[in-house]
Amino acid sequence: MAGSTFGTEFKITTWGESHGKALGVIVDGCPSGLELNESDIQAFLDRRRPGRSKYATARSESDEVTILSGVFEGLTTGTPISLIVYNKDQHSSDYSEIASYYRPGHADYTFDEKFGFRDYRGGGRSSGRETIGRVAAGAIAAKILNSLNINFLCYTASIGDISIDHDRFDASQINSNPLYMPDASAADRAALYLDELKASGNSTGGSVECRISGMPSGIGEPVFDKIDAELAKAVMSIGAVKAVEIGDGIRSSSLTGIDNNDFFEMKNGCVTKMSNHSGGTLGGISDGSDILLRAYFKPTPSVSASQNTVNKSGENISVNIKGRHDPVIVPRAVVVVESMAAVTIADLLMRNLSSRMDNLKKIYL
Amino acid sequence: MAGSTFGTEFKITTWGESHGKALGVIVDGCPSGLELNESDIQAFLDRRRPGRSKYATARSESDEVTILSGVFEGLTTGTPISLIVYNKDQHSSDYSEIASYYRPGHADYTFDEKFGFRDYRGGGRSSGRETIGRVAAGAIAAKILNSLNINFLCYTASIGDISIDHDRFDASQINSNPLYMPDASAADRAALYLDELKASGNSTGGSVECRISGMPSGIGEPVFDKIDAELAKAVMSIGAVKAVEIGDGIRSSSLTGIDNNDFFEMKNGCVTKMSNHSGGTLGGISDGSDILLRAYFKPTPSVSASQNTVNKSGENISVNIKGRHDPVIVPRAVVVVESMAAVTIADLLMRNLSSRMDNLKKIYL
Amino acid sequence: MAGSTFGTEFKITTWGESHGKALGVIVDGCPSGLELNESDIQAFLDRRRPGRSKYATARSESDEVTILSGVFEGLTTGTPISLIVYNKDQHSSDYSEIASYYRPGHADYTFDEKFGFRDYRGGGRSSGRETIGRVAAGAIAAKILNSLNINFLCYTASIGDISIDHDRFDASQINSNPLYMPDASAADRAALYLDELKASGNSTGGSVECRISGMPSGIGEPVFDKIDAELAKAVMSIGAVKAVEIGDGIRSSSLTGIDNNDFFEMKNGCVTKMSNHSGGTLGGISDGSDILLRAYFKPTPSVSASQNTVNKSGENISVNIKGRHDPVIVPRAVVVVESMAAVTIADLLMRNLSSRMDNLKKIYL
Amino acid sequence: MAGSTFGTEFKITTWGESHGKALGVIVDGCPSGLELNESDIQAFLDRRRPGRSKYATARSESDEVTILSGVFEGLTTGTPISLIVYNKDQHSSDYSEIASYYRPGHADYTFDEKFGFRDYRGGGRSSGRETIGRVAAGAIAAKILNSLNINFLCYTASIGDISIDHDRFDASQINSNPLYMPDASAADRAALYLDELKASGNSTGGSVECRISGMPSGIGEPVFDKIDAELAKAVMSIGAVKAVEIGDGIRSSSLTGIDNNDFFEMKNGCVTKMSNHSGGTLGGISDGSDILLRAYFKPTPSVSASQNTVNKSGENISVNIKGRHDPVIVPRAVVVVESMAAVTIADLLMRNLSSRMDNLKKIYL
Repeated sequence: MAGSTFGTEFKITTWGESHGKALGVIVDGCPSGLELNESDIQAFLDRRRPGRSKYATARSESDEVTILSGVFEGLTTGTPISLIVYNKDQHSSDYSEIASYYRPGHADYTFDEKFGFRDYRGGGRSSGRETIGRVAAGAIAAKILNSLNINFLCYTASIGDISIDHDRFDASQINSNPLYMPDASAADRAALYLDELKASGNSTGGSVECRISGMPSGIGEPVFDKIDAELAKAVMSIGAVKAVEIGDGIRSSSLTGIDNNDFFEMKNGCVTKMSNHSGGTLGGISDGSDILLRAYFKPTPSVSASQNTVNKSGENISVNIKGRHDPVIVPRAVVVVESMAAVTIADLLMRNLSSRMDNLKKIYL
Repeated sequence: MAGSTFGTEFKITTWGESHGKALGVIVDGCPSGLELNESDIQAFLDRRRPGRSKYATARSESDEVTILSGVFEGLTTGTPISLIVYNKDQHSSDYSEIASYYRPGHADYTFDEKFGFRDYRGGGRSSGRETIGRVAAGAIAAKILNSLNINFLCYTASIGDISIDHDRFDASQINSNPLYMPDASAADRAALYLDELKASGNSTGGSVECRISGMPSGIGEPVFDKIDAELAKAVMSIGAVKAVEIGDGIRSSSLTGIDNNDFFEMKNGCVTKMSNHSGGTLGGISDGSDILLRAYFKPTPSVSASQNTVNKSGENISVNIKGRHDPVIVPRAVVVVESMAAVTIADLLMRNLSSRMDNLKKIYL
Repeated sequence: MAGSTFGTEFKITTWGESHGKALGVIVDGCPSGLELNESDIQAFLDRRRPGRSKYATARSESDEVTILSGVFEGLTTGTPISLIVYNKDQHSSDYSEIASYYRPGHADYTFDEKFGFRDYRGGGRSSGRETIGRVAAGAIAAKILNSLNINFLCYTASIGDISIDHDRFDASQINSNPLYMPDASAADRAALYLDELKASGNSTGGSVECRISGMPSGIGEPVFDKIDAELAKAVMSIGAVKAVEIGDGIRSSSLTGIDNNDFFEMKNGCVTKMSNHSGGTLGGISDGSDILLRAYFKPTPSVSASQNTVNKSGENISVNIKGRHDPVIVPRAVVVVESMAAVTIADLLMRNLSSRMDNLKKIYL
Repeated sequence: MAGSTFGTEFKITTWGESHGKALGVIVDGCPSGLELNESDIQAFLDRRRPGRSKYATARSESDEVTILSGVFEGLTTGTPISLIVYNKDQHSSDYSEIASYYRPGHADYTFDEKFGFRDYRGGGRSSGRETIGRVAAGAIAAKILNSLNINFLCYTASIGDISIDHDRFDASQINSNPLYMPDASAADRAALYLDELKASGNSTGGSVECRISGMPSGIGEPVFDKIDAELAKAVMSIGAVKAVEIGDGIRSSSLTGIDNNDFFEMKNGCVTKMSNHSGGTLGGISDGSDILLRAYFKPTPSVSASQNTVNKSGENISVNIKGRHDPVIVPRAVVVVESMAAVTIADLLMRNLSSRMDNLKKIYL
């Protein structure tokens, strides 16, 4: 057991259920001397908040964060940072019926199989609210990385089968539409599609792209803790993610070697790559070019339709689950992907410090 | 640092370079009482051996394994199992030139950036020979799982843009063609394509599918050590893998919720799913249906063509790398994917033992 | 960094500073199905509370615990259990002077050296209040173990050079005197000694003994995670502990082999030891007899006397630290030792589940 | 399970049984650029070799080490270093009788209880030969530390009840007598005592002291991975160790605070302590003074005397175990204590690198 901790030196431990008293995270291993206050973290949490658009649940989740430890006079002290968000809008009564059967596409059945019973209110620990801890920790990781000139650009790349057109890519659009898409036209079409889905009580999935720039080379710990391997785990651990690509991803599997190889050249006195099919990693170690990753999300499983399932008495039944459903969760997941990527990179940067005797001498001699 | 260990309770640590004295693995945490001998492990290693076909390197790698510890009178003792394979066919002289520049698509540059220098012979630690340790450990994990009725079916699903046709899927074909494809027609076409690539000194990638049957439900440790997250890391840590899918993977991201949900029904007194879009996991915990995963490999970066790169003096140069090149590594990687999946599942099965007080009472009272 | 997590499968992460908003712990890996409520935990916290006697600080620490997650309808769910205690009685103004120099025997200097600055209020993270998280987690571990018939007997064995007389050992005394000593006479003499120390503004140390009965044999993971090694770390990590003994400890080092060996005999059909010099472990694995350990605490460093030290401007100064001082912390530390021992044993019991193929078959076949 | 790995960033994994084919260790996380060859490691292994004196087993253990990976052209490459020592002098036939019963003071019984059976030859995994891997790894850790001006002075402090007199402490004596004692007179008396014990087939224990000088301040990761806690685990995990002290250890528990506190003063512009009761640590973080630790070993359990025990058929029997017995193992254990201390300190130095944002900026900006 014990699967709610991620990271080795920058280590996060999340806790909390959808309808429990609160959710939160402990960030252990944050270096001392980082300026940090609650608004840094709130800004990240606000990005995962629904209510920015009509495509997200009506539940009003203000999700106000409090720093309980690890920060003194505006600076991190090097001790564990405890962050908490109290649950406010809990309608436990809504969930009484759900307790009796297994919702298709949800984790009700597997939690019961693993643990013998479950907190059925709002999905309990398997709720999307679990990501509050990830995002709060991600805000801290991102702030560390920003101060080292490492930056993130994350956005919705597709909703259903509506994908952004990379020729129309416009970063300034990302925060201009409620779907966080860098292509206004795609965003418009996706919005229409979501209206349709919402009307019919259906849902869809999509994908998120993340570009990490300013990466130093040399980051990643082969052979198992490669930068791409750690990112894959980090991102696949987000609920609803079903696929992860690095660089050209699947497409590279059908190319030839001569087309897929990135050539090197000297540029401004530095070794650089002339292309970036590899997505910023070679042999599991960052190569100094941008890290590129894509995460694919399945559709929200909560739909307003008649579905076959089984109840706890072992009977076949048909259910039509009422309630507030999002037709898509992808836009809210953009900041979750960014957060998990930031936590992963921060941890690997710290782990890499001991890669050379030279580094040890620089700090200790 | 320290990135060559994988797993928590079933823990493997690999070591060794392409042209060092030997390569190997320590398997720590193998339960006592498993029948094990060298032929169990050799059978797995033989599957990753080149030379079964003309598409693999001519280097004769017999790769004979020796068990050095942890087995007594034919049974595992519960202590660390040390497995070693001595390197035999080392032509270090071949690599003198390569030392001076960075091969495109290889990890030469990133190893230098991380460590300041590298063992340049045959790729050193970033060589495909590093997988010897993974496969040797995988043989043990698979034997544990087999004894619990958990079984693996892994095969090549595509080479370049030639994919198997699932309607013609024939498991008996897998070991009948040198490409490990379960579709004789696709295997024939892929063989022709590889002949072409070989003639032109080019290469390609492909994909591997892995189906794990007999899985108990309840396996996986949310929220970070979910079964799909751990598999994603395990598989993405294999050199050349650029994407991982679970279940319907990317395709599920463009479906609607109603189409993607797997309905439940009672079957022979058991809760079962009527479809398996999810690939055997819900909320990161196994649901009792088959685990389905796909790994996508980039083309072999070693090609016989003129390529631009940079040498260690920081000069732009053009190189044409001679030597024995495989036009594809995917068929040899099938057993590597299977091995990493087996190690991951074995570890999660062990970790799950403490999920319920009932289990503790069953063993200790 | 990241040193506030302990355990592998039963994993605890503590956080919080003496004068921050709150302190707490996440217990991740607690099996599902354990009855648990706040009074179970409060009972442990009350044992570390001062105010039971005049030898402890006058600060009123009610230390009320709240369970924030991981428990549903009175049972643990298998998800992380978050426990919080809000700080109430914070006189931060008291600490303004202390910020400017390094108190002898305290961690002021080393925290500054490590982190560049520190939360100086009440010792910050190095305060004894940090043990709140340990004790709250220990309450859960102890409850798990009790349900497996494993029990703890912990008490004060010495204060200064006043030791209990094992010939007068009376377990019923432990909770009858404020020093938790199982020997009323020793408790009386120690009380007089502490009165003297208190009057003179001085302090002393002492020792705690812990006996764990009902241990199954076979627990402990050689060669590094031996039961005695893990206990040694757990106990030595408690602030002020300077020595740890297992079984006869130091005394065994001057015995001869023939006197120190514990002979085996059959008793009620079971293999038992005729003596227990080893303290319940052989080769780092529990042998079925009681685990015996002793922890030795240095004197409280806060004394009312003139002491030489250095201020942050690098000047030699003399200080006389005012404030509420305990003449001894040992009685309050009894429950901390018990808690750390319980957490360690719970974790090792869970890790041992995968030691045999038989256990895996018992759960999965 | 999986208890044969120690360390987080500098991670060692040992393997091997007394009478298996070989024993060894993987050192993962050794920084690149350290000069290393087999003679560095052999020098450490030779210090644990018997045969230097008549008090150690006649078994000729040449224990020649080979580096199998991780070193290229005389420098560490940053990849795992695999070290192997083949077993040569195996008289398995000697052990046939021992298989049938449980030797008092040995781990025969507990290994059987944990694993269901055991490799009974020479103690199998619980043999003192297991320390070969520790010492080989310790040689590398010590070399890293030496290059950072951190040095070790380890020696036998007592044998039976014959202790060195610290007033006669003479470091130059340590390598001048076969008992590694820094007091020639004590060494002479101990030698006579061991002669007696050997004649009567009996044995004794003793203690080892270790002084680590040149320590930077700030090392150690509270609250669990404190420098003293990690050292306690490291040393207690050595077979036969029954107690560990840091600084004044047990003695400090009976002092008063005013006597036990180490005052600070400025010396040559640096904050220094006027005494070192604490043994170089405050709050679990190194304070810049010497680290002082003591390990106490029980007597060798193998004695030539009639002992009561139980056989595998559950019968009470009396045994008199023949064979080559050491009257004491303490002198051979000196290098084992030093090795475990070095591995621990090396790991903590690496982990501390990420304690401050300043360090990250120093390396990455």
